[in-house]
Amino acid sequence: MNDEQDASAVPAARTATAALYLEDLEVGARFTSGEYRMQTAEIKAFAAQFDPQPFHLDEEAAKRSLFQGLAASGWHTAAITMRLMVNGGFPLAGGLIGAETHMRWPIPTRPGDVLHVICEVLEIKPSRSKPDRGMVKIRGETLNQRGEVVQSADIQVLAFRRPVS
Amino acid sequence: MNDEQDASAVPAARTATAALYLEDLEVGARFTSGEYRMQTAEIKAFAAQFDPQPFHLDEEAAKRSLFQGLAASGWHTAAITMRLMVNGGFPLAGGLIGAETHMRWPIPTRPGDVLHVICEVLEIKPSRSKPDRGMVKIRGETLNQRGEVVQSADIQVLAFRRPVS
Repeated sequence: MNDEQDASAVPAARTATAALYLEDLEVGARFTSGEYRMQTAEIKAFAAQFDPQPFHLDEEAAKRSLFQGLAASGWHTAAITMRLMVNGGFPLAGGLIGAETHMRWPIPTRPGDVLHVICEVLEIKPSRSKPDRGMVKIRGETLNQRGEVVQSADIQVLAFRRPVS
Repeated sequence: MNDEQDASAVPAARTATAALYLEDLEVGARFTSGEYRMQTAEIKAFAAQFDPQPFHLDEEAAKRSLFQGLAASGWHTAAITMRLMVNGGFPLAGGLIGAETHMRWPIPTRPGDVLHVICEVLEIKPSRSKPDRGMVKIRGETLNQRGEVVQSADIQVLAFRRPVS
């Protein structure tokens, strides 16, 4: 199966297990996700549905393209990054709700690549008007098995305070 | 089927038919895509695969969430936006290859929403080192059937010059 594996082979940071509230976060805190292996069939299926371009669909056409070989759609890399973050990579209480992101794809994701995500908290801004929440800016870097960054995303996410019991 | 329909019901701009090279683009040029209807089953299937959170998967749970009803994953909106752009919405010669994007989701995409994309050219920068290409900054706004912006993305894409014959 393609499911996230144990992240024990991944360097650095902690894998959080409990859902985190706004007051549990601090600037500089880092979180590491599990891993996901990108398979050729899934790369082509995603492309056929959402990004039907020859360099994402066909090995021969991809060889003759700028990518010089089959490459996953950047949106596929983004979607798998989200999956890894939701499945324990950045376990916010109430879920991961993004408002805005700035992202780039320095190098393509290739068939067989094993991806993981490291998230770092960059900024924490409690809301002035809504005392139960705040916005948190995180940098999510998606790395392949060689430690190369295939996607870097600065993301504004909503975080809730722990409810008063 | 869910395929792009004729964009004749969509206001403004032209739907380009021929592949465009760097020198065919000008700042301020606008392009309109076809349309895509977001269906409940597809919203849930995308979420199950890439963004498994209750408010994207289950109507009842979604009612009790911030979204107050089922909402598509922002990455699903992004992926459908790419599909609409690739399928005629922004027909660059050589394909749509993005390097970087800044995007935001002002309101959620809902089941039944009919989306289309309007792209506007913001900036054209011929490459200094590679005379056959340049970078083009476009703003892609994804709108629903009420003309509300569900996603706004500034995207840096690669554009090639017409080959000398």
